[in-house]
Formats: sequence, C-alpha cells, structure tokens
Amino acid sequence: MSAPTGNPYARIDDLLSNVRNFKIIESTLREGEQFANSHYSTETKIKIATMLDQFGVDYLELTNPCSSPQSRADLETICKLGLKAKILTHTRCTIGDAKIACDAGVDGVDVVIGTSQFLREHSLGGKDMVAITKQALEVIEYIKSRGCEVRFSTEDSFRSDLVDLLSIYKAVSQAGVDRVGIADTVGCASPRQVYDLVRTLRGCVSCDIEVHFHDDTGCAVANAFSALEAGATHVDTSVLGIGERNGITPLGALMARMMPSSRDYVLSKYNLKMIKSIEDFVAEEVEINTPFNNPITGFCAFTHKAGIHAKAILNSPSTYEILKPEDFGLTRYVHFTSRLTGWNVIKSRISQLGLIMTDDQVKEVTAKIKAMADIRPLAIDDADSIIRSFHLELNNGQGQEGQSEQNGQNAQNGQVEA
Amino acid sequence: MSAPTGNPYARIDDLLSNVRNFKIIESTLREGEQFANSHYSTETKIKIATMLDQFGVDYLELTNPCSSPQSRADLETICKLGLKAKILTHTRCTIGDAKIACDAGVDGVDVVIGTSQFLREHSLGGKDMVAITKQALEVIEYIKSRGCEVRFSTEDSFRSDLVDLLSIYKAVSQAGVDRVGIADTVGCASPRQVYDLVRTLRGCVSCDIEVHFHDDTGCAVANAFSALEAGATHVDTSVLGIGERNGITPLGALMARMMPSSRDYVLSKYNLKMIKSIEDFVAEEVEINTPFNNPITGFCAFTHKAGIHAKAILNSPSTYEILKPEDFGLTRYVHFTSRLTGWNVIKSRISQLGLIMTDDQVKEVTAKIKAMADIRPLAIDDADSIIRSFHLELNNGQGQEGQSEQNGQNAQNGQVEA
Repeated sequence: MSAPTGNPYARIDDLLSNVRNFKIIESTLREGEQFANSHYSTETKIKIATMLDQFGVDYLELTNPCSSPQSRADLETICKLGLKAKILTHTRCTIGDAKIACDAGVDGVDVVIGTSQFLREHSLGGKDMVAITKQALEVIEYIKSRGCEVRFSTEDSFRSDLVDLLSIYKAVSQAGVDRVGIADTVGCASPRQVYDLVRTLRGCVSCDIEVHFHDDTGCAVANAFSALEAGATHVDTSVLGIGERNGITPLGALMARMMPSSRDYVLSKYNLKMIKSIEDFVAEEVEINTPFNNPITGFCAFTHKAGIHAKAILNSPSTYEILKPEDFGLTRYVHFTSRLTGWNVIKSRISQLGLIMTDDQVKEVTAKIKAMADIRPLAIDDADSIIRSFHLELNNGQGQEGQSEQNGQNAQNGQVEA
Repeated sequence: MSAPTGNPYARIDDLLSNVRNFKIIESTLREGEQFANSHYSTETKIKIATMLDQFGVDYLELTNPCSSPQSRADLETICKLGLKAKILTHTRCTIGDAKIACDAGVDGVDVVIGTSQFLREHSLGGKDMVAITKQALEVIEYIKSRGCEVRFSTEDSFRSDLVDLLSIYKAVSQAGVDRVGIADTVGCASPRQVYDLVRTLRGCVSCDIEVHFHDDTGCAVANAFSALEAGATHVDTSVLGIGERNGITPLGALMARMMPSSRDYVLSKYNLKMIKSIEDFVAEEVEINTPFNNPITGFCAFTHKAGIHAKAILNSPSTYEILKPEDFGLTRYVHFTSRLTGWNVIKSRISQLGLIMTDDQVKEVTAKIKAMADIRPLAIDDADSIIRSFHLELNNGQGQEGQSEQNGQNAQNGQVEA
C-alpha cells in the first residue's frame, strides 16, 4: 500500500489491489488461434512465442494438443525452445486431455469446464455440479502428480450460479490448485460485476486468481483492470485481442491501461517498445489491419488536432496525454492544417519555418489557412505556402527565412512532430 | 427499480442507475471532426446528421461556429433541417462564443472550461477557480436569457481537484444549468473512479449529468456504463468513436454494452439495424476501416470457430452469444474447416449436405479434415470434398445425397450460417 505523495493525483491503492503486481498469460497461440482468420504455421508459432517471450510475458498459453496432430507437435516444439516464459496449454477437464498435455512437456495445464446453466445443458449434456466437481478434483490431482502447475477455470462464469461457483472454487483451492480462473466467455460482464465477483472469490480461495474477458460489449480491458483492483493476479491477453468472435483483452491496450497506474512496475517487466512490431507481425499473419483507434499503435493515437488541444500540447504534452509516445518508441503529432486550427499552433509552425511575425499577423494568416481548409483538405505544403506568401507580402519581398527552415521538411500530411 | 424475475441472471438495478433510462449526445459532427482524417463537406454533415436522427439519438453536437466561416454556415444549415434530435454546439466558456452559437439557431450550447492544474496552467494562463466560476455563471446566464439549453462541463475532470469540481458544479446547478458535464479528456479514468465521481456529484447537483470519455486506455465504453450506473443521464458518443487521438465512446459499442442490460429500452428508442450502414458511411468519409474487432460490426463479431464453442452454438446460440446478430440485421457464422473443428460441427455439416453417417464415421471424417487443415487453410469446398469422397467410399460409389444439398451453396470461406 503506497502512501500519499506530493502529487495530489497519485492513486492510493488498497491492500487487495494487484494493479502494481500482476502477471500476463498470453494466449495469442490459444485464444488467438480461435480467431476466424488464424492459421498459424509452426514457424509463425515459434516467432510469436519468441517475440512475446522477449516482450516479457509471464506465461504463454497454447492450443490443446488434442486438437490435431500438428497442434501436439507444435506444443512439443515450443516447450523445447527454452523460453523464460512458462508454457501452458488449455484443455478440457478430462484425464485424457491432461495426460497428453503433460506428456508434451508443458509447465502447466489450464483446464476449463462450463458451469453456467446454458453450458451444462447444451455443451455438457446436463451434468450436475457434484459430477463436475468430482471430475475437476480427479484431473487436478492427476496434473499435480505429473509435477505440472494446474489452473481450474469455469466457463461462462458470470452466468453461473454464485453458490455453485464458490463451492467448486473452494474445493479445488483446498485440493491445491495453483490458480482458479474466472472467464467471461460470452463478453457480458461489466466492471462492477467483475469487481464484486473477484472480491468475493478472493475471500474464498487462497490460490492465485486468473481472469479472462471477451470483448463483445467493449469492456475487456476495463474488466481486467477492475479484476486486478479486486485481487486477481493473472490476466489473459492476446495480441490485438484476437480470439473467438471479436476476441479478448488486447495485450497492448492492457499495457496502455496499466501505465498510468503502474508505470514503474510495467517498465520494469515489459519491453513496451516491442508492442508495435509484435502487433504488426501478428496482424500480417492473420491478415487484419491494426484498428485505427487501437490504444498506443492506432495511427492517430498521439495526433492532436483541435486548436485548444494543440495549443496546450505545445506548452506541455501532459495536458492532453496520459501516455507518453516515447515510452512506446513512437512520436507525437500536432495537426495544423485543418479548419479547427488555432493561432497558437500556427505561431509554432511559423517559428519552425524560421519566420518572424507579430501575434496580430499570426492571427491574420491563421484566418487565411482556416478559410482555405474550409474549402478542401490542406497538405502541409499548402499551409506552408500560405504562411510564406503572407510573410513575403509583409516584407515586400524581403524574406527573413532563417536557419531552422529544415524543421519544416519533417512534416507530412498536415501534421508536425511536437 | 425492477423486481427479481424468474431469470436468476436478471439484473437488479438500484435507484441511482440510469442504465435503463439514458440519452445519447452524438458528437460525430464535433468530437468526430477533431479526428485526424475528418474533413466533412456540408453534404456529408447533412447526411450524417440525418442518419443519426433516423437512428434515434437524442442530441447532435456540432463544431463551434467560431472555428471557421464554413463551420458557422453548416451549423445554421443543420439547425434548419427540422430534425427530431436537438441540435447542440460545443464552445469555449465565453460570452462571445455563446452569442454566435445562439445566433446560429441551436437548441442548446455545451460550454467547456479546463479545471485541472495542467489545463489551468498551460491552456488558460493560470486562471483561478474564482475567476473560472464567475465566468461560467455569466455565460450560463447569457445562454439561458437566449432561451437555449445550457450544459457546463469541466475539461480533464479526473485530474481536477475534487473540491474545486464539486464547488463549481454546485454553483452552476444552483444557477439553473440544464446539465453538468464530466469529461475524461485524456482518457485516464477507470470504471471505479468514474462510478465514485459521478456518484458523489449526483449528491451535489439537481440537474442532469453528461459524461464524455476518451479511449486512450481502452475504457471509454466501460466508463460510460459505470457512469450510468452511478446516476449519469447523458452519454457522449461518436460513430466508430472517432475523435481527438483514438477517440471517445463509440455509438455502436455503447449499444452492444447496453443491450444485455437494457434490451427493451434500447429497442424502443434506437434503430439498431442502421448501425452498420451509419458506420460504413462514416468510415468511408474519413477513410478508415471498421476495426476487425469492432463490437457488433467487426467482420467476425458473430463467427464461432473452436469445436467446443461451435457444438454448443449449434445446440443453442445463447450459450456463447450475449448479443443476437439478428437484432442488428446481421448473421451468425460457424467455422468448420479449421484444425480446431469438432465432430459435432462436421455432423451438422454432413446433415446440411444431405448425407447420412454414423457418429463413428463422422469422427473418422472429422479427423481427416483436421489433418488436412493442419497442412493448409481449407476453403469450404475442400472440407465438403473430403466429406463427399469419404461418404462415397463408405457406400461404394452409391451416394445418398438428398434434397438439402443446396444448403451447402450458402457458405463461403469455411463458414456456414448457423
């Protein structure tokens, strides 16, 4: 628990919170393989595993080796790479699956079983909780006897009966399971529900708590954060969030969420400058584009446009940025060629061009630029031409262009690095 | 407050919650114009306003008419369209801006001023809260005297001093403001912070509460939902979330979030089947792609792949879906040609092809399909060919293909409508 500091905006964590002490179970090679477009070759799996290991994730989760012969062979291959990250696989809660998983050489097995009324009826043929618990305990005992870590997760946890859930989690915790998992398999949970369930569970089990959130209703990042606040210890992610339907908590977005709260911890563990290259590699493999609005790596995540924003950013980036682009090896841009441009930004541009004007003159040329931007999109050259020709008129052809003109050459598309 | 029903998973709302009684302030024509790629023509603005009005949003917010001459002319044009939605514009908190806004014919003016230490220092030249409050009260009085609705919002509310915030909100509420606004201008807020601040504010003001969330750390949808739970009344959105940097709460994602909690309310107010066409129009205008993982309209939002998921979906879609694609005029797909395919899905496909096999035969042909999918991505034709040739072998060339064969013609890319 951290004491208040001189910064009045510093968080005061409570004793439960693991916001500054969490682990990542990276599931691009399991959940991500369930993404509609995924068809990984062995080489691709090795490359993804290696990059994520260099990034610093704590665990890598791979597809069940029972899925296909190649899945089994690839799991064995990745177990032999000697990565720092522990290798997990994700299986049904049966001795048969568990045996094949342990034989493949994994560090741990993540077993899962459906507990909601929906899944018990439609996926498990009407099994009751007594039978499910008995099965879970047998499989856990088996995996432990093989010297592997074991996680027990329910599926569709947020539509399962609370008493059923807590009963089975308590039983597996007493049986020595390493982690219990909560999974929002259908993406229905909201942050306060998540906080309440994890907080309640935290009081019932002594083992670690893993959480897995689907993003059908846009809350997968927020739910992961709320779960950590309530005492969860491990978060499942995938690169760009790829998975069943529209996927799960994205690795990069989770980093964006954790940085303002847990900067020192995140920087000590994870190599944030790799996020863009990892995302680019996976996006190309599964033939998608990085979403335009992706946290951190969306093409305009650090672009400022409206006059009031741009003015303040030029004074001090922290006014409108909670994340620093340089932490991710990226760059900030200020847009200055739109109808929303303010004169403070044009003043900065004039100075970059090495020209000298009074504030009234800057305001006059700003009005000219805005009037032109009302008519059509302006490239940076257009705006610069307006500034230069205005300046030329002011000085009757005697320009005062100076040594900093080359700064102007860095900009493209009406944006300038700030 | 709703009573518990026969459904054990039904929410029990508390008295504060507006989850089933919220309004949308749609800001694609204001916040969305601050998106890096936006350059709307007058015709585009009219089209967007008209579509959003037909969709059923309560308010449309447009760019400050002081931004440029065309901005002012366009605002006047849209005020004259006679839409059902009320027309707002968003201005600095000055009499000058407010006068031009009221002259343009708006129904209301949304004024904003920065209150965080960061913005007061870097954007407002060090103004103190006494001066900011005095200025706010003058502008509010002026706008009310013109017969317009008025909203007063702080900027960067989550990095502002709590006592300062509550003081100014209380003062403007007593002065008769219609709404106060909380804005997470930098995208730093987390759901529990949002709940706490809105809950506290709800106890200090009698007017409506509007919320505005940027998505830098991936929480804009969850924060809006948490705010409504705490008593907020109005949520700012834009189509696909476009806005400064990576934008704000997306309209479509908010609908996805609200549907599981507030289905009847949402369906009574909003024309959900228009979401895809509105998003497609805006995406084309600002030259972006709909994100692959967009709630509702992402290309695989309703695609199911892993064997265990697909089996249950075929039994009952509610097992793995919290949203119904048909509510949005969309269709569900089940992937059956990957290495993750299970035999239940292949059994369903065999039946669609009008073939008859025993379960053991289905399992045998499933293994063949999975083995082939290990080698290369399979199109639906590939999988169907394996099934047909296996069936042919079984029957020594005497096929039993029946009348439902045409079902197979609907599928492409290894997916089938379920």
